[in-house]
Amino acid sequence: MTETRKDPRRLTGVGTCSKLDIPALFGPVFAEVAPDIDLLAPDQVTDPGAVDFVLTFLPDEEAFRPYPNLRGIFSIGAGTDGIDACPSLPADVPVLRVEEPDQALQMAGFAAFNVLWHHRNMANVIACQAEGRWRRRVAELSPRARRIGVLGMGHMGKAIAKALVALGYPVAGYARRAPQDPLPGVTYFQAGGLEDFLARSDILINVLPLTPETTGLIDAEFLAKLPEGAALVHLGRGGQVDEAALVAAIDSGQLSGASMDVFVEEPLPREDPFWAHPKILVTPHIASVPEFADVVRSLRERLLRLTVG
Amino acid sequence: MTETRKDPRRLTGVGTCSKLDIPALFGPVFAEVAPDIDLLAPDQVTDPGAVDFVLTFLPDEEAFRPYPNLRGIFSIGAGTDGIDACPSLPADVPVLRVEEPDQALQMAGFAAFNVLWHHRNMANVIACQAEGRWRRRVAELSPRARRIGVLGMGHMGKAIAKALVALGYPVAGYARRAPQDPLPGVTYFQAGGLEDFLARSDILINVLPLTPETTGLIDAEFLAKLPEGAALVHLGRGGQVDEAALVAAIDSGQLSGASMDVFVEEPLPREDPFWAHPKILVTPHIASVPEFADVVRSLRERLLRLTVG
Repeated sequence: MTETRKDPRRLTGVGTCSKLDIPALFGPVFAEVAPDIDLLAPDQVTDPGAVDFVLTFLPDEEAFRPYPNLRGIFSIGAGTDGIDACPSLPADVPVLRVEEPDQALQMAGFAAFNVLWHHRNMANVIACQAEGRWRRRVAELSPRARRIGVLGMGHMGKAIAKALVALGYPVAGYARRAPQDPLPGVTYFQAGGLEDFLARSDILINVLPLTPETTGLIDAEFLAKLPEGAALVHLGRGGQVDEAALVAAIDSGQLSGASMDVFVEEPLPREDPFWAHPKILVTPHIASVPEFADVVRSLRERLLRLTVG
Repeated sequence: MTETRKDPRRLTGVGTCSKLDIPALFGPVFAEVAPDIDLLAPDQVTDPGAVDFVLTFLPDEEAFRPYPNLRGIFSIGAGTDGIDACPSLPADVPVLRVEEPDQALQMAGFAAFNVLWHHRNMANVIACQAEGRWRRRVAELSPRARRIGVLGMGHMGKAIAKALVALGYPVAGYARRAPQDPLPGVTYFQAGGLEDFLARSDILINVLPLTPETTGLIDAEFLAKLPEGAALVHLGRGGQVDEAALVAAIDSGQLSGASMDVFVEEPLPREDPFWAHPKILVTPHIASVPEFADVVRSLRERLLRLTVG
């Protein structure tokens, strides 16, 4: 009698997301860089007990329920907030975010671009070009003239801080806990030091994850603690910024401008006032997007470690 | 009998330039950070033999003639081309450019901004914002996707290369001679290797000094050696780029765009086609401007060394 038993050398995953067709997007990538892994859609699964992992981003409420033997749950991005909030998330299965060095470098480059954008007042330089006006302002070009604050010193925050130190900016980093492995040239602030950190951040770069504590964190009161004329570079998650308070802080002159890459609602609705605001640079969530092949390679390595362990 | 002898502890310089009133611009800075140095205008000099140095940028033809005892000639900028070309330049007096770490960091930041500008197609992102369009293109965001070439590996080029290595870009540097102290992560090309260097430079950053060899260097033939779709970031000197050839190379698609910070004629004339070109970012010679106080502090240190020696 032949039983349809699973080949023990093969691994099986389910791709599921309320917004993206993960099996369609990632299937060809697994075939190429992880041919020993089968990635199925939920309706292709015949033996739920044989599913080793789930790959997802914004799972449906019941997404994890059918699979009793998961070894890992993988996010396709750097954030896991959608997974963390899922009611069917099993308590004993590790949730793994993408932590690619390449993705952190993308983020560092995009953060550096936005720091220069505000420091060098490039919106104004571009407006002058549009008018054919040669208008040189050459004061405060030194990186010493802008103190950078990196809010969130995880995988992304560290890469950003490192790049901006290399460019000569005075950099401080804020994280709840003291760093285990502090970066040279970075001043660290911990829980209790947020006000002091904000008071010295001429350009604040937010890369915090979305958690209950960070939801709505960047509100009018928070923005009032920055130095007058500061700029916000928001690369975290939409739910963290009170968008009306941000516009009010810019219009009052408390902030000189902002770069917004993530929004409460994405795509950003056509009628949103951000689009036409002359002091807000709107980018469509492009700071950092991991290459699918990198995501799958790293997933495979970590999955094999979880499977052996 | 009282002779008006020079106080041996004081030093005397002349500020002279065909375009800028150097004594007026720098006088207050000397008073603050180098009070032991007198900076005079040429018509204030009573004893030409007592003049220790000249501070200049674009000297008149006869600018150096009156002073027989110069110990050094200082440029107020990173370039010395105007000084080198001056007929009255004495052969035995050292010419010193500004070599401030801060100025190199300004240049590195501005180069990084322009690399991201082209790599991330930010002109298009900004155009989409103007139209209120959420248009995500997330391919090739990795710094691996753009090979950077730094043309000129002096004080500025080294700082640029270092910053772009830190951001994860593959970086090559071209200089006539092999480096004495090669930077980690940088591939070097020397005289004879220019074609190979250009063939691998998706974004070419020019920071060469203006010399007879580099005048007109970046012409149609030169631009044709770059990979199709390459971008030029021109931070060197105006006389190096054949501006008509550059526009033609962009309009033919050979180049995807350019950033131009220096021009044959500055201010760039109102009728110049660069202003309105959608694929050229025009900036008014602002990549890097040394702080006057830094220039004077460094001049004083080097002058004291020359005076002791």
